[in-house]
Amino acid sequence: MIPRYSRPEMVALWSPETKFRIWFEIEAHACDALAEIGIIPQEAARTIWEKGGSAEFDVARIDEIERETKHDVIAFLTHLAEIVGPDARFVHQGMTSSDVLDTCFNVQLARASDLLLSDVDGLLAALKERAFEHKDTITIGRSHGIHAEPTTFGVKLAQAYAEFDRCRSRLVAAREEIATCAISGAVGTFANIDPRVEEHVAEKMGLKPEPVSTQVVPRDRHAMFFATLGVVASSIERLAIEIRHLQRTEVLEAEEYFSPGQKGSSAMPHKRNPVLTENLTGLARMVRSYALPAMENVALWHERDISHSSVERMIGPDATITLDFALARLTNVVEKLVVYPDNMLKNMNKFSGLVHSQRVLLALTQAGVSREDSYRLVQRNAMKVWEKGKDFLEELLSDEDVRAALPEDVIREKFDLGYHTKHVDTIFRRVFGAV
Amino acid sequence: MIPRYSRPEMVALWSPETKFRIWFEIEAHACDALAEIGIIPQEAARTIWEKGGSAEFDVARIDEIERETKHDVIAFLTHLAEIVGPDARFVHQGMTSSDVLDTCFNVQLARASDLLLSDVDGLLAALKERAFEHKDTITIGRSHGIHAEPTTFGVKLAQAYAEFDRCRSRLVAAREEIATCAISGAVGTFANIDPRVEEHVAEKMGLKPEPVSTQVVPRDRHAMFFATLGVVASSIERLAIEIRHLQRTEVLEAEEYFSPGQKGSSAMPHKRNPVLTENLTGLARMVRSYALPAMENVALWHERDISHSSVERMIGPDATITLDFALARLTNVVEKLVVYPDNMLKNMNKFSGLVHSQRVLLALTQAGVSREDSYRLVQRNAMKVWEKGKDFLEELLSDEDVRAALPEDVIREKFDLGYHTKHVDTIFRRVFGAV
Amino acid sequence: MIPRYSRPEMVALWSPETKFRIWFEIEAHACDALAEIGIIPQEAARTIWEKGGSAEFDVARIDEIERETKHDVIAFLTHLAEIVGPDARFVHQGMTSSDVLDTCFNVQLARASDLLLSDVDGLLAALKERAFEHKDTITIGRSHGIHAEPTTFGVKLAQAYAEFDRCRSRLVAAREEIATCAISGAVGTFANIDPRVEEHVAEKMGLKPEPVSTQVVPRDRHAMFFATLGVVASSIERLAIEIRHLQRTEVLEAEEYFSPGQKGSSAMPHKRNPVLTENLTGLARMVRSYALPAMENVALWHERDISHSSVERMIGPDATITLDFALARLTNVVEKLVVYPDNMLKNMNKFSGLVHSQRVLLALTQAGVSREDSYRLVQRNAMKVWEKGKDFLEELLSDEDVRAALPEDVIREKFDLGYHTKHVDTIFRRVFGAV
Amino acid sequence: MIPRYSRPEMVALWSPETKFRIWFEIEAHACDALAEIGIIPQEAARTIWEKGGSAEFDVARIDEIERETKHDVIAFLTHLAEIVGPDARFVHQGMTSSDVLDTCFNVQLARASDLLLSDVDGLLAALKERAFEHKDTITIGRSHGIHAEPTTFGVKLAQAYAEFDRCRSRLVAAREEIATCAISGAVGTFANIDPRVEEHVAEKMGLKPEPVSTQVVPRDRHAMFFATLGVVASSIERLAIEIRHLQRTEVLEAEEYFSPGQKGSSAMPHKRNPVLTENLTGLARMVRSYALPAMENVALWHERDISHSSVERMIGPDATITLDFALARLTNVVEKLVVYPDNMLKNMNKFSGLVHSQRVLLALTQAGVSREDSYRLVQRNAMKVWEKGKDFLEELLSDEDVRAALPEDVIREKFDLGYHTKHVDTIFRRVFGAV
Repeated sequence: MIPRYSRPEMVALWSPETKFRIWFEIEAHACDALAEIGIIPQEAARTIWEKGGSAEFDVARIDEIERETKHDVIAFLTHLAEIVGPDARFVHQGMTSSDVLDTCFNVQLARASDLLLSDVDGLLAALKERAFEHKDTITIGRSHGIHAEPTTFGVKLAQAYAEFDRCRSRLVAAREEIATCAISGAVGTFANIDPRVEEHVAEKMGLKPEPVSTQVVPRDRHAMFFATLGVVASSIERLAIEIRHLQRTEVLEAEEYFSPGQKGSSAMPHKRNPVLTENLTGLARMVRSYALPAMENVALWHERDISHSSVERMIGPDATITLDFALARLTNVVEKLVVYPDNMLKNMNKFSGLVHSQRVLLALTQAGVSREDSYRLVQRNAMKVWEKGKDFLEELLSDEDVRAALPEDVIREKFDLGYHTKHVDTIFRRVFGAV
Repeated sequence: MIPRYSRPEMVALWSPETKFRIWFEIEAHACDALAEIGIIPQEAARTIWEKGGSAEFDVARIDEIERETKHDVIAFLTHLAEIVGPDARFVHQGMTSSDVLDTCFNVQLARASDLLLSDVDGLLAALKERAFEHKDTITIGRSHGIHAEPTTFGVKLAQAYAEFDRCRSRLVAAREEIATCAISGAVGTFANIDPRVEEHVAEKMGLKPEPVSTQVVPRDRHAMFFATLGVVASSIERLAIEIRHLQRTEVLEAEEYFSPGQKGSSAMPHKRNPVLTENLTGLARMVRSYALPAMENVALWHERDISHSSVERMIGPDATITLDFALARLTNVVEKLVVYPDNMLKNMNKFSGLVHSQRVLLALTQAGVSREDSYRLVQRNAMKVWEKGKDFLEELLSDEDVRAALPEDVIREKFDLGYHTKHVDTIFRRVFGAV
Repeated sequence: MIPRYSRPEMVALWSPETKFRIWFEIEAHACDALAEIGIIPQEAARTIWEKGGSAEFDVARIDEIERETKHDVIAFLTHLAEIVGPDARFVHQGMTSSDVLDTCFNVQLARASDLLLSDVDGLLAALKERAFEHKDTITIGRSHGIHAEPTTFGVKLAQAYAEFDRCRSRLVAAREEIATCAISGAVGTFANIDPRVEEHVAEKMGLKPEPVSTQVVPRDRHAMFFATLGVVASSIERLAIEIRHLQRTEVLEAEEYFSPGQKGSSAMPHKRNPVLTENLTGLARMVRSYALPAMENVALWHERDISHSSVERMIGPDATITLDFALARLTNVVEKLVVYPDNMLKNMNKFSGLVHSQRVLLALTQAGVSREDSYRLVQRNAMKVWEKGKDFLEELLSDEDVRAALPEDVIREKFDLGYHTKHVDTIFRRVFGAV
Repeated sequence: MIPRYSRPEMVALWSPETKFRIWFEIEAHACDALAEIGIIPQEAARTIWEKGGSAEFDVARIDEIERETKHDVIAFLTHLAEIVGPDARFVHQGMTSSDVLDTCFNVQLARASDLLLSDVDGLLAALKERAFEHKDTITIGRSHGIHAEPTTFGVKLAQAYAEFDRCRSRLVAAREEIATCAISGAVGTFANIDPRVEEHVAEKMGLKPEPVSTQVVPRDRHAMFFATLGVVASSIERLAIEIRHLQRTEVLEAEEYFSPGQKGSSAMPHKRNPVLTENLTGLARMVRSYALPAMENVALWHERDISHSSVERMIGPDATITLDFALARLTNVVEKLVVYPDNMLKNMNKFSGLVHSQRVLLALTQAGVSREDSYRLVQRNAMKVWEKGKDFLEELLSDEDVRAALPEDVIREKFDLGYHTKHVDTIFRRVFGAV
């Protein structure tokens, strides 16, 4: 966790204070269920809530106990006993540490998912607004970094919207994956604890009971969760790289907002570097990389080993904090993105008319020229534009073979930009449901 | 693709013959839609189906043309023209190569998903049968590779069933991710092709239209697909490692089936090595590794570049063929697994009675002994078993402090195995819906 | 292994024929040593060489035997016995299959390294030639995709040369890592085979004896090997992406060679896409991905398990064949790269004079203006160029505060390009040892 | 960075205080060179050392300035000016931020390497001591988790020693990779700074000048560095998994040291879990995962982009701190490992005599029995041991076909353990140079 790539709400979710609070809630809800079943006194359950519910757990004190016992849950329970008094002996009855640890981790991941979903909603709103703003802003579409055919900047953003909308659905599914509760004892047989305790705690903590846990929640769930974050990060990378390309000196069709006081470089004051999206590219690499140890965590030995734990202590916070930050930063970039429609047009016209070659090719074949011949005709005129800077339309109009197949007005019509934007509304309707 | 790790049906799906057949279908369906809209003659569309529908495409001939044109779709279309005749000029009208390539790739991935789903169904059936067979087969549960508490071998298999059932749902979702069709032209604007063509082809090929494609289907879909395969592979690894552990010489609770003619080693004839599950461990590493280049493929430049293509030519077949083989091999291992219930019991009793320590601990606390004291009492008797080979029950019965808290019959009752299996039916009901 | 991304020599190295030939050599050399020590008859060793040395091993026959025995080395030895006759019983004395398999794999990897080193040599030669050709070809250096200061195209290529020169050293080290021989028996104790056999075979096969093998060569060696290939692939990606950027429509400073007959796109005949370097980007992702399963292979259980085998059957050929192809393709791209020095100059002058801002800034501070003030002075003039298309030199000359600090000739001198290239020879001397 | 997986010296290396101290040294040494060349006054260089050399840089103050300028190096220089006074204007002359940042990062990585090398030395010492202690401690070698042939525990540790000795060499090479200095200006042309400054700073900071930098040190160096750490981590995983296996309840041949006060589990007091080596398994996954973003960092755009920066802010500290901690923890585990030679013998004799089957097989073939027949003879007796618990030696002695080929004393001799350890000294001599 790097402060500069972190936002407070997500950081707080991973603080010891939050963790101990969740541990307490799990234990206290379990006591309620144990009391309801008749294993422990109702009075004890009430006392535990009363004394622990409002207590501030002393992180330093718990750390101190842990240094001695080398066991975090025992350290917490010992501290809890200092707060609750004798009734504390009813806490954690028949439970094992992982019942608390794993359920807590899933609560944290579920809450982290909620923050991420809210981030994506913000990003989607920004993308939608900018997409509609630029629905008709003509720009050149590029394949292989080479001019292809016209599109609009709004369509680019609509694509990003559709992509992050898919990411949203994936995050909802990822949340579903890990929102489970396991309170099933040492190897998951409920030998020492009634399954009704798990059901009660699950309900109270907003989780579903894990069908079969084996002391631990099975880690295929977490693998799927972190793999999903990796895919979301990859989509962030895609949009970040798009913006970096658009901001290149030679392209300059869009630019990250550059605040008046900001210095781009200690040496070259004219430079406005796309540092935010470059940063996002790097952050995406990190979030993606966490998917692998999460997948390696799946194959725990027998009912469980603890190799996953150190991994998750790192990637639990790191992946969610970094992705939260990245989504928020990208939202900010999109919201404030400075767009240069004039440059878009200027760039498109760099090779005068070549972008219309596809249409001319089609017109030739439709006029009965063979595919091979049409291709050759278009190509020989296109090459004059490319190599000698000629104007494509004029070359075509003065090519006898072309003219033999197509009348002048048909050729001229092929250079109409409206032709390329006629289905933009169709696309917007598909993505946004309306135009 | 390694023949020894491949099965014919999945291999066939990735053959040039299958690919060209799918290309033809996409082109021919597109012609139907173009004819319906009135762009090309109905008669031409019919001729294309008639001549191409039953044709065997000559892969060698197409390769030959491609060597000259350096373009695979043009090579195919040229060959198709040789088969269809003059009407071939109506094929591919307004389309771009990626319309064919990407839609075909998604058809292949969707069909591959169907095979994988069928594999998982086979595995689930095998797991279910063996789980019920061993529902009550007592075995020791192990955390950290160390004996913990008793469970049953059926519960182990029920866990695996639940895990692969989740994998099944993930594969269904992954199939959904990539089952889209894109026929939208050079940069996805439908400038040269009516969106109705895409809709028609999508429906006929069992796909959904891609809301916004940009010549290519966006690769976040494929990243999610291959990441999902990586998670499934990780679950395969988990079960494979479980079996490898159970087959260890010192454990020998289960064993891969060893056919009479098989030689385990050129030098040590007594050895029966878990080579199938070791092999699965390696295959899982491979399938998992493909998730990363798939994620790196997401950030294509602008409307598209072609960097994803070489990756997908490799991981498309490799990931699906390997996972298909691995699922089938694992199914076979599970079906034929030789289980040794006697060894399970023998192992469990290795440290006489220690597995019941948790119950004794709980009984002590419930009898009013403090958590700390209970722990100490249990620990001091357990250590005698561990270090001196004493019998845990007898040590407890002769420990005055223990006896001061618990009567003999209560202590003896704590050594009843039925205590640990009383909720096995609950677990089976959760997983299988019935017992 | 994808034919289109493969070259015949590297493919042949991984053929069954090559493998069986190497197996034979290992076995036959081992027989020589065994005969020398007196374990087997000298005559037998001679016979084995005589009959086996010129034999063509029948791959189909070996496969047939393997289908029955399910063991590849036994299948080979059985076939060898069919060729050699009774003396075959002296073959493989005291050896275990892995002695043959692992030593063979290392021979293949060492030979693959030799091919890769030769590829890198070719690439270095191409880079060197083009670097000297363009030592003085002025081009703009870009940080963040934004114009920074002038450099030369030769310096760019010198950087690539230095990078691939490091890659060469890494490949030499990687070859060293895996060029070991293990003939140490079932668990590496030499119980059944004299260490002198290993020493003899090692020497004959161009390897070093593995200090401690445990039936297998330890896989940290292979992890290092494949990780190194991943780093080399990443350097390929870097140069590929550089070229892709230079070929962008708006930049067009260099271009992959486009053969007259080649078709760039079925629809847009004017397009010349950097498809080779895009392809290299994808191939780099693949080679990089193989590093991970290779690292996961390290932790074999105890003296060995066989999980690494399936991984290596895949990545052994795939990583080396793909990297060999990629290096050769990149060499070809570099050799034939079409360079446009005029466009380089045109691009550099896009924002008239702004690239000299750093020099002006420095001149101001050296003239006694504070860093802060200098920065502000440069920035305010730069912004006029950026936003209003003014000429930077003229703006500076007419800025009173600037002129108060610097005389006209000093300002003008700051716009001399020679200033930026004065150390190009220094750089070339560092990289190439001469200029 | 997780406190519980961190050691103070490595953490301190990555503190802001250390970073600013290194920045200062780079700047001050550069001033010396600039003064020597005559660019800035000698007096100024002296003042900078005098005032800055003993100054405590105020991290909070620098952060405050950075929040305004959004540029870390400018923030530092501004703060430095507050300390040094007017002469501060001579600092950073002709340099660019990356000259400081990249050289500093490499200094940190080189120092981190020194700590890691010292860690490895500690581990090697521990392994050597324990290896010699157990040079003759007989234990069963296992392939596939199945008993193979006897070896000694010392040989196991010698293997680990040899592996970490290779890791040591790799770390030395990795340190060499990144120990470079770049002070070459905005695009690496030395336009604004004399190459002699770089040479001077390099020498003073213990680095080599980077032959061609392009504002940044090329990232293939760092990719190789972090990939190497990933390989070292994989070797840690191997030894950790070995120990976890040895500590399994059924095996119990060795055990992590368990301090008297330590609690293994809140519920099962008899359990001694190999939690340290399980933890190391997880940490290894993390260190390994960092190799990938480091490789993705290589392909920076043109002369540089800043996408690598966020990655390195994370993996720079995380990878080195985690690996440092893991090496130290592993050293501790090895030093204190409790070894149970009696259990090793007991386990080896589990299947009475089967481990000698390979020797018997060899004896039979050497006695003239065909390989196939020998195999069958050994196998049929071995199966009686395996399936019916018979004694292998006795079965062989009473098998007429075996006796027809081998006299009793020869058969008995095949069960001598000394046979397997006769080359242990050879192995130790190879690894340690002496016995």
